[in-house]
Amino acid sequence: MTGLSFANRHIGPDAAAQRRMLEAIGYGSVEELMDAAIPESIRSQDSLDLPPPASEAVATAELRALAGQNTVAVSMIGLGFYGTHTPAVIRRNVLENPSWYTAYTPYQPEISQGRLEALLNFQTMVADLTGLATANASLLDEASGAAEAMALARRASKSASSVYVVDADVLPQTLAVLRTRAEPLGIELRVVDFAAADPVSELPAELFGAHLQFPGASGVVSERPSVVEAVHARGGLVTVAADLLALVLLRPPGEWGADIAVGTTQRFGVPMGFGGPHAGYVAVRSGLERMLPGRLVGVSRDAAGAPAYRLALQTREQHIRREKATSNICTAQVLLAVMAGMYAVYHGPEELREIAQRVHGQAGRLAAGLREAGVAIAHEAFFDTVVAVVPGRAAQVVAEAAQRGVNLRLVDADRVGVACDETTTEEHLELVWAAFGAAAPAGAAVVGLPAQSLRESSYLTHEVFHAYRSETSMLRYLKRLADADYALDRGMIPLGSCTMKLNATTQLEPISWPEFADLHPYAPVAQVAGYHELVSQLSRWLAEVTGYDAVSVQPNAGSQGELAGLLAIRAYLRDQGQQQRDVCLIPASAHGTNAASAVLAGMRVVVVACDSEGNIDLVDLDRQLAAHGDRLAAIMVTYPSTHGVYETGIAELCARVHDAGGQVYVDGANLNALVGYAKPGRFGADVSHLNLHKTFCIPHGGGGPGVGPVAVRAHLADYLPADPLQAAGAPVGAVAAAGYGSAGILPISWAYLRMMGSEGLRSATAAAVLATNYVAARLGDYFPVLYTGNKGLVAHECILDLRPLTKASGVTVEDVAKRLIDYGFHAPTMSFPVAGTLMVEPTESEDLAELDRFCDAMIAIRAEIDEVARGGWPGDDNPLRQAPHTAAAVSVDEWSHAYPRSVAAYPTGVPRLGKYWPPVRRIDGAYGDRNLACSCPAPEAFMT
Amino acid sequence: MTGLSFANRHIGPDAAAQRRMLEAIGYGSVEELMDAAIPESIRSQDSLDLPPPASEAVATAELRALAGQNTVAVSMIGLGFYGTHTPAVIRRNVLENPSWYTAYTPYQPEISQGRLEALLNFQTMVADLTGLATANASLLDEASGAAEAMALARRASKSASSVYVVDADVLPQTLAVLRTRAEPLGIELRVVDFAAADPVSELPAELFGAHLQFPGASGVVSERPSVVEAVHARGGLVTVAADLLALVLLRPPGEWGADIAVGTTQRFGVPMGFGGPHAGYVAVRSGLERMLPGRLVGVSRDAAGAPAYRLALQTREQHIRREKATSNICTAQVLLAVMAGMYAVYHGPEELREIAQRVHGQAGRLAAGLREAGVAIAHEAFFDTVVAVVPGRAAQVVAEAAQRGVNLRLVDADRVGVACDETTTEEHLELVWAAFGAAAPAGAAVVGLPAQSLRESSYLTHEVFHAYRSETSMLRYLKRLADADYALDRGMIPLGSCTMKLNATTQLEPISWPEFADLHPYAPVAQVAGYHELVSQLSRWLAEVTGYDAVSVQPNAGSQGELAGLLAIRAYLRDQGQQQRDVCLIPASAHGTNAASAVLAGMRVVVVACDSEGNIDLVDLDRQLAAHGDRLAAIMVTYPSTHGVYETGIAELCARVHDAGGQVYVDGANLNALVGYAKPGRFGADVSHLNLHKTFCIPHGGGGPGVGPVAVRAHLADYLPADPLQAAGAPVGAVAAAGYGSAGILPISWAYLRMMGSEGLRSATAAAVLATNYVAARLGDYFPVLYTGNKGLVAHECILDLRPLTKASGVTVEDVAKRLIDYGFHAPTMSFPVAGTLMVEPTESEDLAELDRFCDAMIAIRAEIDEVARGGWPGDDNPLRQAPHTAAAVSVDEWSHAYPRSVAAYPTGVPRLGKYWPPVRRIDGAYGDRNLACSCPAPEAFMT
Repeated sequence: MTGLSFANRHIGPDAAAQRRMLEAIGYGSVEELMDAAIPESIRSQDSLDLPPPASEAVATAELRALAGQNTVAVSMIGLGFYGTHTPAVIRRNVLENPSWYTAYTPYQPEISQGRLEALLNFQTMVADLTGLATANASLLDEASGAAEAMALARRASKSASSVYVVDADVLPQTLAVLRTRAEPLGIELRVVDFAAADPVSELPAELFGAHLQFPGASGVVSERPSVVEAVHARGGLVTVAADLLALVLLRPPGEWGADIAVGTTQRFGVPMGFGGPHAGYVAVRSGLERMLPGRLVGVSRDAAGAPAYRLALQTREQHIRREKATSNICTAQVLLAVMAGMYAVYHGPEELREIAQRVHGQAGRLAAGLREAGVAIAHEAFFDTVVAVVPGRAAQVVAEAAQRGVNLRLVDADRVGVACDETTTEEHLELVWAAFGAAAPAGAAVVGLPAQSLRESSYLTHEVFHAYRSETSMLRYLKRLADADYALDRGMIPLGSCTMKLNATTQLEPISWPEFADLHPYAPVAQVAGYHELVSQLSRWLAEVTGYDAVSVQPNAGSQGELAGLLAIRAYLRDQGQQQRDVCLIPASAHGTNAASAVLAGMRVVVVACDSEGNIDLVDLDRQLAAHGDRLAAIMVTYPSTHGVYETGIAELCARVHDAGGQVYVDGANLNALVGYAKPGRFGADVSHLNLHKTFCIPHGGGGPGVGPVAVRAHLADYLPADPLQAAGAPVGAVAAAGYGSAGILPISWAYLRMMGSEGLRSATAAAVLATNYVAARLGDYFPVLYTGNKGLVAHECILDLRPLTKASGVTVEDVAKRLIDYGFHAPTMSFPVAGTLMVEPTESEDLAELDRFCDAMIAIRAEIDEVARGGWPGDDNPLRQAPHTAAAVSVDEWSHAYPRSVAAYPTGVPRLGKYWPPVRRIDGAYGDRNLACSCPAPEAFMT
Repeated sequence: MTGLSFANRHIGPDAAAQRRMLEAIGYGSVEELMDAAIPESIRSQDSLDLPPPASEAVATAELRALAGQNTVAVSMIGLGFYGTHTPAVIRRNVLENPSWYTAYTPYQPEISQGRLEALLNFQTMVADLTGLATANASLLDEASGAAEAMALARRASKSASSVYVVDADVLPQTLAVLRTRAEPLGIELRVVDFAAADPVSELPAELFGAHLQFPGASGVVSERPSVVEAVHARGGLVTVAADLLALVLLRPPGEWGADIAVGTTQRFGVPMGFGGPHAGYVAVRSGLERMLPGRLVGVSRDAAGAPAYRLALQTREQHIRREKATSNICTAQVLLAVMAGMYAVYHGPEELREIAQRVHGQAGRLAAGLREAGVAIAHEAFFDTVVAVVPGRAAQVVAEAAQRGVNLRLVDADRVGVACDETTTEEHLELVWAAFGAAAPAGAAVVGLPAQSLRESSYLTHEVFHAYRSETSMLRYLKRLADADYALDRGMIPLGSCTMKLNATTQLEPISWPEFADLHPYAPVAQVAGYHELVSQLSRWLAEVTGYDAVSVQPNAGSQGELAGLLAIRAYLRDQGQQQRDVCLIPASAHGTNAASAVLAGMRVVVVACDSEGNIDLVDLDRQLAAHGDRLAAIMVTYPSTHGVYETGIAELCARVHDAGGQVYVDGANLNALVGYAKPGRFGADVSHLNLHKTFCIPHGGGGPGVGPVAVRAHLADYLPADPLQAAGAPVGAVAAAGYGSAGILPISWAYLRMMGSEGLRSATAAAVLATNYVAARLGDYFPVLYTGNKGLVAHECILDLRPLTKASGVTVEDVAKRLIDYGFHAPTMSFPVAGTLMVEPTESEDLAELDRFCDAMIAIRAEIDEVARGGWPGDDNPLRQAPHTAAAVSVDEWSHAYPRSVAAYPTGVPRLGKYWPPVRRIDGAYGDRNLACSCPAPEAFMT
């Protein structure tokens, strides 16, 4: 409604700026440019069939209407999702603060110290509470965490068995995901009832691990040391899926033999969001840390010897291990992990204990009230969940409660589960009692915590969990950390392949609304009509944009979308009687995750070569197609390629693979270069995953959440992921713990599509391609652009080749990346997909002033490199090698460098006002890997 | 619900810390301390009768329920309040960002450059749009702005007349406030119908000024140059109250002779909030700038010669002019002015024009539809408001519209006003037509803008209004400005008398809810039941806390509360037949505003002396009482005194004044030292104003909004401010444009009281007194505490006497204040109430770590002063005199100071990590006053 359309707010360069940019690259219009850049063979002719673009006000009003179709009931369903009070200071200053949510994954640690510290808090919290040595910086959810633990156990186990035992009292969604993940890997899941009289006798003779739930899905609290011992005796590893709030009161798994603990940290202040996103966790005992999946933050030191954080042991990661990976996890749930960690920081151990005790006390009162009314309780030992036995009456009780505004869990016809949480009040208990025909107990609460299981060890002893108890101090801590970091709110983050574009406020505001934030994923369907409608519309729009026929939003990360897509292909081929097809072709330039996902989907990875232009070598492709014959399952390609080029042979490639009986998977990582101009589902692909956190504006959150819907053509539609609670018998199981995955952030992408409309989306694509070609043109004389397509054009990103300069001067891509910090920029992608290069993706959201500021900085850096090359500055003491420069470094009393302070502090073009100062100097990553430390360091370490 | 009670989040030092602090000052408990500090004679014995404290979750739920009792209808009432779309990027990153809302008034300009630049944008916007030379940094609302303009006109006019002419088409609330303000000053208001055939003939022969409304309240657009000319011919000044959005299309008042323009900027993106807060504006022609009321931002230069902003011409301000003041305005509406200015920055002139044209076009279509249905339109010339003539049917039409969810204005029995705004849609027009029994017009829209009145001059030509059109660039601009500033989110702001304590997120979140934000102040009462209930509860609680019988929340700043309180006394005395009582006694130590308010209330100010202890000299008081006899109207005292002391004689003072027939006004500025322990209404006072932005947690917003309710004992209850639309015949008129003043932010104080409860409030008071005594004890050996009360104790603030040190070393309070910036602090209050001193108020919200950090910094500064005193550093080149130091200053290539860089950059105890760097060096205020420049400087000025 206000002035400019949203598209004009989203797209940085206005019409006048675009004209200037077009002039600079010699095109008369964006359409002329796009005609030249995008191969005719893949172009769509029609505009997208989307509703006309809504203004921000209208989109907000429509989202309010959708939200109004959801009902926020009192949730006592439990099963891994709990009501929680997000401290308002954390909601406003983390979840709703662009300094946190627009940050990228901390691959440039010098400008990510704030979120790295926050993640270290998270890791320390998880390690302390689970009683294990090392926790990672979060996983996607408890269910996928359990699957990761299963893979870890298999790798670490001394047993050659393929049997993995699962507690019958496991969360049903976890079991569903374990099934999905076990089958392609040839793992045999064996569900065992550990509640049996002699649980050990239920164990198979051979196994490589076991998964226990603590407390169980039924609420029962039982440590089962005999099972642990027996699994260990068989050479297996024990994973315990544990509730962190329960561990405040109960002996942690690490103290009773668990090798691995997994779970969710949702109830530590992260809204349920109808299923996500939340931060899952995984922790391991000493000795397993180098096998941990996912991101791991560790302490190292910077060039001045000061302690500094960075991601540790990165060689573990899937994008490096590729087809040798045992996990395809890329993203952590950073934003949510930060929230959960800060919840612990704000509450500290004493208050967490108070919360846990209150929750337990309420469950105990609940049980007492039921017992006094003659209702039996299924388990003597419980923490927060009571299962009431009401033979034949369960459905009726659940309905009675629902009428009173309380959702309970219908376990079966005879049993009702009731879970208490931080938000439970006496009034809620009264409603529950009333639903059972019971009343508040006259007598004492039932004590459900077994005396022998009570926790004695301390936790959260580090000062950080004791220093910020007032809101004022918490606010300042959050601000101080945010101030240390560089995010989109400071300037451009031109990361190739990562698409760091605008995350508009109007898109983000609705995710805080209670009607989207406070819904349990298994709430009765009548209460979540708004979500269903939103997901249905979003899925339809995404299908339209991509040219596919069906979409599932369940995958809660791009990697999970890849897996879901490959599982769909696998199941489809199986149903076609082609189960022998197990070869997945992957070009050498692919994202490393592709190979890892193929492995997890039970496929064999075969690499297809690229030619000197960076394009897939069609000759080698033919060779591979011939070599693998009817073993060919699929090819996974990224389009435009990771080289930033619209390869002209893509349609031909699709046709040849189809002719060979294979399916075509187009990785949607670069979809932002296609939207409105070409549809993978129409130019030959069968399946894609999309990255809503790239093309569709979900913020990167400092390294997560991501959302990776999978989109397929009609023949694969039946093979999309099943709902985790209805997965039995489905052709493909669940890949995430909730049916709609990270539903809580889907309003973001919905709003983006709703406000852009067909023309807006198309304009955004063109603006991104224009910006990249403009940057390539401005920088080409200083840093050669490695690959180009049609007419020397690039797509939405371009690779700057620094190798000749490195050879001549010794200045490396890392030096340039760190020097860019001094100029006030986040570095482009380093050495991917080609070592020794920088890949630049400006996106459509950067305006011309910022693009020019970046180009000017790069050109100034080129002059600095030349100065090194001509010997003006020593190779080891020049502003590039010594970058980044902190304020402390440039204000030391004695300056000993070969270049002046002013060059260090304020390079060419950097204004005196508003400069971003990195908090640390260049970090020595190898030191930290040699001296692994992954929890909060002692405060003394920071004494200066 | 979560762990700690809100009181424990609000209060910085926890029990353990309080024990350590008590030990340091030699008390066993806070009660023992408070017993010693507060005179027995004024102590309340009972706990406050307030509801038990609610958790943050419960308070939020209750506020949601109150909000649910409000109905957000389509508002087409107009009359100075309009629907507007707050750009989401501005809402989230200004209104909801603690970096903006927790900042203080920019009295320390070096650490306030961000908001000063934002205010300069506001001033430039207002000056451009009104066509006048200089605008100030905002006023409270249009109505009080009109009153300020009247006072300015009287002062500047060559005429000795006391007649001020007011357009009959003035906004009714403006007229109400003008009446309130004119009467005590002996100004005769003459309402004149300028729509008469010969408006000049209606003018009195003598006058000192005239107030025109443009467009009129009726919507009519008329420039009336003949009236302007005639007023000027009589030596009067012309004030035009003008709608800024209309001025985008219409020739601005500055171009047709206005001397002064006033108005509101509400419709520039600031929610209506049931009346406020919004930023009013005042602009003046060249030659009047030095008479402008309120805050004025100007450009000056810093010690390095770089341009820098600061408040200009501060000697104009009421606290300096005291009883010579012609205005009592203290606060600007900074946060709202920032929003309105940023709205213009984000939209730029083209989009503003588009918005204005659309609004006008809708009004024109509305008129056309009505005309085609046979409904007459009252005025040919209009901008956004159409008055329909429906003889005898007006009430029915308004009711029909209300049924359709649209609020119209009932002008009288025959006329209905309909105002279009930025949020008006075609659907809204259809609802209006339907209410009239009309339909969409078949023909063209009526053109209401007179051709001869169209604007031809350009506006918003400065680059700042053209550079931030994308959301990304706007976000970064807001971030860059916020980063320049020091607010409570960085550290302590120990400003004596200003009470910079926690503004809790839970208190602030509700003000963004549409049910509080989007209500018109004159909406039908049935639609605002939630607000009425909230105000009623808040008023009751405030009365309970203060011991008074009645409270009005209408005054939208402390100064307005003072005025309202004094007007109540004045009217009461008049009704008692004591109208001769016109002397207001004010102690020498009082806030300067007190005297200014007394003048505005028509009283004569007589100063009462203070003794050497800083207490009111009771001997002099007796002398004054005797001297003025039955001319005594009142005494205004601050309690505890502005010297930070609980004067023991307060009860006695009240008694003596009462005996002399006077009323006692206790300024509530320091109420935070009394809450829960003593009630002014019980120890002898008759009236107080409260500063909700001090004691009751409304954030300072960088210099506003403030809220200043007035609280009175029963005998004065009838003399509280009247509703502006029902002021006729009331004993005291309205002091603000809306009945509940800045209603939109009252949820903040409501939530504070609701979550603290009696015990929490009492604990907060004690914690504030404890913190001050702790600081006084720690610093006393380094900087003598000037005044103490009982047992050497101070109250909630203390004055550190630097005069001996200044004498010995030449180091001034200003040097110390600026050096504190290098240490990471905002300075205490400088030279108030005693020149050469610093007044420290830590508040209860600072935890012990922060208190100690401050004390350590002050002690380190004392050592630096000693070094200067002993000649170690020259008097003009030492770290104090050269403070503050920018990052640029400490990283210059050649260092020429007598002290090392490390001392400049990182003084004792300041960590390398997370240091706040001021953006400019010390600012030369006098230079800027000599070279007054109060709009945005050319970008070239910042070239470095």
